[in-house]
Amino acid sequence: MSADYYCGDIEFFPGIGRIPFEGIGSDNPLAFKHYDADKRVGDRTMREHLRFAVCYWHTFLGAGADPFGVGTRLFPWDKAASPMDAAALRMDAAFEMFTKLGVPYYCFHDRDMAPAADTVAESERNLSRMVERAARLQKQTGVRLLWGTANLFSHPRYMCGAATNPDFHVLAHAGAQVKAALDATVALGGENYVFWGGREGYSTLLNTDTARELDHMAAFLRAARDYGRSIGFKGRFLIEPKPMEPMKHQYDFDAASVVGFLRQYELDGDFSLNIEANHATLAGHTFAHELQISANAGLLGSIDANRGDMQNGWDTDQFPVDLYDTTTAMLVVLEQGGLAPGGLNFDAKARRESVDMEDLFIGHIGGMDAFARGLEVAHALLTKSRLAADRDARYSSFDAGPGAAFARGEFGLEKLRDFAAAHGEPAPVSGKQERYENLLNQYLLR
Amino acid sequence: MSADYYCGDIEFFPGIGRIPFEGIGSDNPLAFKHYDADKRVGDRTMREHLRFAVCYWHTFLGAGADPFGVGTRLFPWDKAASPMDAAALRMDAAFEMFTKLGVPYYCFHDRDMAPAADTVAESERNLSRMVERAARLQKQTGVRLLWGTANLFSHPRYMCGAATNPDFHVLAHAGAQVKAALDATVALGGENYVFWGGREGYSTLLNTDTARELDHMAAFLRAARDYGRSIGFKGRFLIEPKPMEPMKHQYDFDAASVVGFLRQYELDGDFSLNIEANHATLAGHTFAHELQISANAGLLGSIDANRGDMQNGWDTDQFPVDLYDTTTAMLVVLEQGGLAPGGLNFDAKARRESVDMEDLFIGHIGGMDAFARGLEVAHALLTKSRLAADRDARYSSFDAGPGAAFARGEFGLEKLRDFAAAHGEPAPVSGKQERYENLLNQYLLR
Amino acid sequence: MSADYYCGDIEFFPGIGRIPFEGIGSDNPLAFKHYDADKRVGDRTMREHLRFAVCYWHTFLGAGADPFGVGTRLFPWDKAASPMDAAALRMDAAFEMFTKLGVPYYCFHDRDMAPAADTVAESERNLSRMVERAARLQKQTGVRLLWGTANLFSHPRYMCGAATNPDFHVLAHAGAQVKAALDATVALGGENYVFWGGREGYSTLLNTDTARELDHMAAFLRAARDYGRSIGFKGRFLIEPKPMEPMKHQYDFDAASVVGFLRQYELDGDFSLNIEANHATLAGHTFAHELQISANAGLLGSIDANRGDMQNGWDTDQFPVDLYDTTTAMLVVLEQGGLAPGGLNFDAKARRESVDMEDLFIGHIGGMDAFARGLEVAHALLTKSRLAADRDARYSSFDAGPGAAFARGEFGLEKLRDFAAAHGEPAPVSGKQERYENLLNQYLLR
Amino acid sequence: MSADYYCGDIEFFPGIGRIPFEGIGSDNPLAFKHYDADKRVGDRTMREHLRFAVCYWHTFLGAGADPFGVGTRLFPWDKAASPMDAAALRMDAAFEMFTKLGVPYYCFHDRDMAPAADTVAESERNLSRMVERAARLQKQTGVRLLWGTANLFSHPRYMCGAATNPDFHVLAHAGAQVKAALDATVALGGENYVFWGGREGYSTLLNTDTARELDHMAAFLRAARDYGRSIGFKGRFLIEPKPMEPMKHQYDFDAASVVGFLRQYELDGDFSLNIEANHATLAGHTFAHELQISANAGLLGSIDANRGDMQNGWDTDQFPVDLYDTTTAMLVVLEQGGLAPGGLNFDAKARRESVDMEDLFIGHIGGMDAFARGLEVAHALLTKSRLAADRDARYSSFDAGPGAAFARGEFGLEKLRDFAAAHGEPAPVSGKQERYENLLNQYLLR
Repeated sequence: MSADYYCGDIEFFPGIGRIPFEGIGSDNPLAFKHYDADKRVGDRTMREHLRFAVCYWHTFLGAGADPFGVGTRLFPWDKAASPMDAAALRMDAAFEMFTKLGVPYYCFHDRDMAPAADTVAESERNLSRMVERAARLQKQTGVRLLWGTANLFSHPRYMCGAATNPDFHVLAHAGAQVKAALDATVALGGENYVFWGGREGYSTLLNTDTARELDHMAAFLRAARDYGRSIGFKGRFLIEPKPMEPMKHQYDFDAASVVGFLRQYELDGDFSLNIEANHATLAGHTFAHELQISANAGLLGSIDANRGDMQNGWDTDQFPVDLYDTTTAMLVVLEQGGLAPGGLNFDAKARRESVDMEDLFIGHIGGMDAFARGLEVAHALLTKSRLAADRDARYSSFDAGPGAAFARGEFGLEKLRDFAAAHGEPAPVSGKQERYENLLNQYLLR
Repeated sequence: MSADYYCGDIEFFPGIGRIPFEGIGSDNPLAFKHYDADKRVGDRTMREHLRFAVCYWHTFLGAGADPFGVGTRLFPWDKAASPMDAAALRMDAAFEMFTKLGVPYYCFHDRDMAPAADTVAESERNLSRMVERAARLQKQTGVRLLWGTANLFSHPRYMCGAATNPDFHVLAHAGAQVKAALDATVALGGENYVFWGGREGYSTLLNTDTARELDHMAAFLRAARDYGRSIGFKGRFLIEPKPMEPMKHQYDFDAASVVGFLRQYELDGDFSLNIEANHATLAGHTFAHELQISANAGLLGSIDANRGDMQNGWDTDQFPVDLYDTTTAMLVVLEQGGLAPGGLNFDAKARRESVDMEDLFIGHIGGMDAFARGLEVAHALLTKSRLAADRDARYSSFDAGPGAAFARGEFGLEKLRDFAAAHGEPAPVSGKQERYENLLNQYLLR
Repeated sequence: MSADYYCGDIEFFPGIGRIPFEGIGSDNPLAFKHYDADKRVGDRTMREHLRFAVCYWHTFLGAGADPFGVGTRLFPWDKAASPMDAAALRMDAAFEMFTKLGVPYYCFHDRDMAPAADTVAESERNLSRMVERAARLQKQTGVRLLWGTANLFSHPRYMCGAATNPDFHVLAHAGAQVKAALDATVALGGENYVFWGGREGYSTLLNTDTARELDHMAAFLRAARDYGRSIGFKGRFLIEPKPMEPMKHQYDFDAASVVGFLRQYELDGDFSLNIEANHATLAGHTFAHELQISANAGLLGSIDANRGDMQNGWDTDQFPVDLYDTTTAMLVVLEQGGLAPGGLNFDAKARRESVDMEDLFIGHIGGMDAFARGLEVAHALLTKSRLAADRDARYSSFDAGPGAAFARGEFGLEKLRDFAAAHGEPAPVSGKQERYENLLNQYLLR
Repeated sequence: MSADYYCGDIEFFPGIGRIPFEGIGSDNPLAFKHYDADKRVGDRTMREHLRFAVCYWHTFLGAGADPFGVGTRLFPWDKAASPMDAAALRMDAAFEMFTKLGVPYYCFHDRDMAPAADTVAESERNLSRMVERAARLQKQTGVRLLWGTANLFSHPRYMCGAATNPDFHVLAHAGAQVKAALDATVALGGENYVFWGGREGYSTLLNTDTARELDHMAAFLRAARDYGRSIGFKGRFLIEPKPMEPMKHQYDFDAASVVGFLRQYELDGDFSLNIEANHATLAGHTFAHELQISANAGLLGSIDANRGDMQNGWDTDQFPVDLYDTTTAMLVVLEQGGLAPGGLNFDAKARRESVDMEDLFIGHIGGMDAFARGLEVAHALLTKSRLAADRDARYSSFDAGPGAAFARGEFGLEKLRDFAAAHGEPAPVSGKQERYENLLNQYLLR
């Protein structure tokens, strides 16, 4: 490792060094304008607040294919002699990028890191070998694993689901993969373990027993939880909601669905939520709404930082550059006291048309800057503006007296009726939405 | 009451008698083509299966206003000298229509039946007087009350919510209204009591404490439950989900949200769900999905039968005439053993442009026929086709052996892994969606 | 008129004076942070670039009613003894607000300014009287009319359309209204005249002859054009696209539909487009897209400045405070050389919950500031950044040689084929979307 | 060729013979219930009305890959030794299926039929060889080519568009492909030639000169038209609208956009529209709306028969089994006098989970039956019901007198005003939407 970044035998991103912080006046596309890792915002540094992670899949395996065309990006590591050789080179490229960007974390699926093989045992061996290599590179660079996961959606066998597949034989394969992925996550000191139920849903209700499938999903998660704890995994399990795609309907539709599911099956002691911005909007919610619903339940675990396109009804996984999204997200995060042990993972990909290797960096820089600025604005709104105080004052009638008694369950319907009859018509109180919105713009531009 | 329908001092729908069943060959727009109340389908008559209700609000108060124009329909009863006189005439019109259509049930909001007044006490008196009248007409005609409810969204005081209003004083008024509406529902022998949280949500997250509002909502529902039980209400309480409109976001977003909420606050012993088709599609689900999720939880209580427009993003409340919707809905209802004590309430309105009085009948006839035919098709699919057997066979690997052990929680991750390793790759099994879909068309057209 | 604003016999917005520019450091919600009317941006002042208008309907008649509740805002002018007295007071309030905000323009519908009466002639007289009053106030204050229009959607007679109504008798009434509204617009020196075809569309295709209705719409617009020109109207006629609501489908769906319609019926010499942000998103486009399509056709006439809610499928008409929207809009406006004789009309309303009179000001201030900042950012992007040059460079292969010959129609399919065969595979060129997006954020926050 | 279907050296669909018509009583999933090719409906047979085509791409190349997983369907022809060998076997399979299904037509892209090679010339040779083979099989079986097209979206070089690519070099390759595809279409007697502008649009407006790109698109289509006519192509050129996907926004957004574009560039003499159901709903329209808008312009050329999922925002290309869609589509087709030289091409694919070879047949059978029944219902509605007469009667006030004078442009705004003033308020006329909707159900179920 050079002074400030890792480089294996081949430098995969030549001409790009450690990305510097240069501030808003800089015109250098390969410099941060806002993300200054050691800058303090309140009681923590930006690095500690934001806990950025780069994802393995889009960044090092996503060649740009879409349903209407093959990949456009030629990754030099894909030219290796064998899949395992390619996996080794890819890992070098990954750690080179992690360290050049200066992110403290990364995330991966089992199949991102090591290729699947024909048998369960051989696939496990592939993964083990690559995990050993990753452990060495983590130690060498100081980069850590935010979370691991298993890809239970790409292989044809999972076409009708993994944990919810009608065929137990398929479900057993899913179990084998999760076991190995948990082993890998523990070996790499992963702080969380994620389930995205990509095909846990249905294509048509006509052929589906949803009740039975949901029971199986819960049994599967329990089995994973029990195994994880048995091998010493101390982190959080995370469920990542998404409403649809690839399935017509996915069971983990949104935060409220998943919170309800976790409580129903008594999994909320071990499982939290990993909220993705693009999945939130596909479900008909804002990103901030999904974060808030999770935080209300004490179950906001981690974030997949990206954005969708509001005119497109599929997961576009764009880099998050909308400052309203990042600011309102950080408002929720700051109000709940931070994200740890979760973090902000860029589940985002450069556009198919962005074929330069530097575009991978430019995308991440834009996202990191947008969240850094969102953090600053949210912090200022909470500490310098009237936003929180004004909001809380709206509820002051419940702080004491009959309102408080009601909230405690001690002021029943007859008492409410008598209170209303006695006090006549309430005076209207403006919600002042426009003032709140102007306040946000004011702090954004200061 | 004449031989077959009720008529007060004025006949409000002259020229229209009791709607006859004439069968599919009839060209009479004022006759049923499929709904033959006493026809048996399986072990019950159509009347018993479908438990149709007419709603008071759209049918007798909905003059056709929309955000861009005033009402187009001139109701003769609105010409009365005073609001209470109009309410009395409106009730005559309502029972005339109930009996001419031959529906066994109706539903109402407090403010539909009796006008609000300046004080709580006077509003209560108005409602009491109209309830007495309704009780007489119910007795005279045999028509019954499917459910009552309180309108907690039209009055300006509820602009920021009723049970979730930041002002306790407003919440107290909501409590007064629910108390009176419960009194009315019990007095009229209502079989259910509904909460539609029209403004229980937010316009912007920036000014809203969602956690506190949800706690208040639960406290309010508990108070209502306790009061209702205290006055002898034996029916189900029902929550009607809707994702948005009028609010930007409503807390009772969809079935999964409400099921989770009811369980969290331990209200699921008394509360079930009233699923509306148009609300389902606004939430990004199919009607059948929302019914199924509710049924899975044992909480499918009743149905608001209508349909939305898939190209329009607001509640259009059209009459349900799509036979796919009615058939897939009745599949869920039949599989859960029926809807009682709930029913099928037409929360539907004639289009603003349908200004003839007969259009109110034509709309209901279309909806009743569509559900009658949906019932027949669903019954045939379940009793004569391979649909259910084929669907169940997909899950047979969980009926015994390791699959069953897994479902019982007795087959952990390591066993799953070993099973997968030992049994190799599973054979692909087609989901056969196209065959199921063709089967549905086949039975629809038979 | 006081030194800096108009006030009639009653001051309707007491406590609010002329809104000052105080800059980004100010915490005064009733001051501009960015809009400094006389500040020059390029070759024009902000006032000249932005040409702001306040709309009469939402601001002075919109009491906050929605489909689920009556109005929440009590306008003092509505307490007048008669509709015409109320209209006079409302006009005083309007000019008080125009001058306190410092906007140069306003817009109105016939029925906003003067109440309809029972006969055509009486309605005309009402309007004439109020137009005389408006003319006096315009002269006194210097405020001008950006555009007038006729409300052809609120009256029940227009339920099936105005110019596209199947009943010629209804269409004739629409003609009468447009004639009077054109007379009023000319009398007030209006710079444009707008048609929003609110009910020009259909509720169901089953009862509609769309071809005939479109022919009638064109004939109606020609008649209006001919009459307008005959009475000396020199301004632009404008069509405002909207895809749906209140109708299931509106003919003027989006910019491309309207451009095609205007060209088909040879109306594009007199008619341009008035693009509304919220209508753009309802149609599945971005605001900037609709502006660009209009500008490409040379038909971007004016803008209705507001915003929708991306999770809500109806026209929410919120104040425009999203800086991405205002910046990308101003990019199109600046690149086409400005908006005149059009302007930026705030077709926006305070939320139903924003019941304080000052909320009407706060909303407008937020919108004016957002567009002022958008103007500055767009101007900087075009004059100081590489955005335009980089974009143009992408097309340089068409500037000369075979590319230019192709564009001129002089390089046919066989030549293209031979060129491709001779030159082999083209080198991939990155679209650099992420770099463009980061650039926008960089200039936004500078 | 056997008595009733073609079979090459290998029978690719063993166990499936010529699909028989067995009628609605049959439970055979591999029999038609409604499509009886020689049955007359009005003046033509079902075969002549419906002009069914099977598409090459989904049916013989679509292995079921989606953005989250690889293909699930193993096509026996893909096991051939070389791409050209596979192409030959695939063609055998195709003609076997065409003839077993009994469809008169098929459609293809250049790259479906023959693999691309490294050079333009070699790709042309591949295509020529396969075209010769196809010509033989067409002659042998009687199956004909409905339309050909070129795939200008899958190759990476087209990532930023083909005819609208900013790089002329890429555009030249597109020209080479279209030239070869036109040669192939003419050689095979194709009755139409289609352009689907899959990547003719943009990913971000920030880097795009939409005006220049649209001019290039028009120049490209002119070049194709001129070349096509020069080699003797007598058929229609067709544009297939789609609003988005894969691009964020596609220029050929919907029927109105394309009609406007064709007229602007004077291409409507040679080009018509190919309307796809799923694209219609993605654009916010109904299928019937897009057909009607095209028919109004005299430009409804052909149909891509499929359906989308109203809850999913991407192209699901499901088989068309919704009888409302097929009936309302056939209403437009019958009212315009038929589809020839266009047809009904099944741009539809079996679900990814439908991995049995017979599922390809079951999907097509369901679609053919649904359109056959839709044809019967539409024919009955137009010839036996009051639908058309009632609809036309709504417009009778324009058949003569002042209404007709207005429609001719001879009754200006002043005359309209005087007519309205003289005739007073028009009587309201109900739109009767509910009656029309019930009528459709009545004929559907008869």
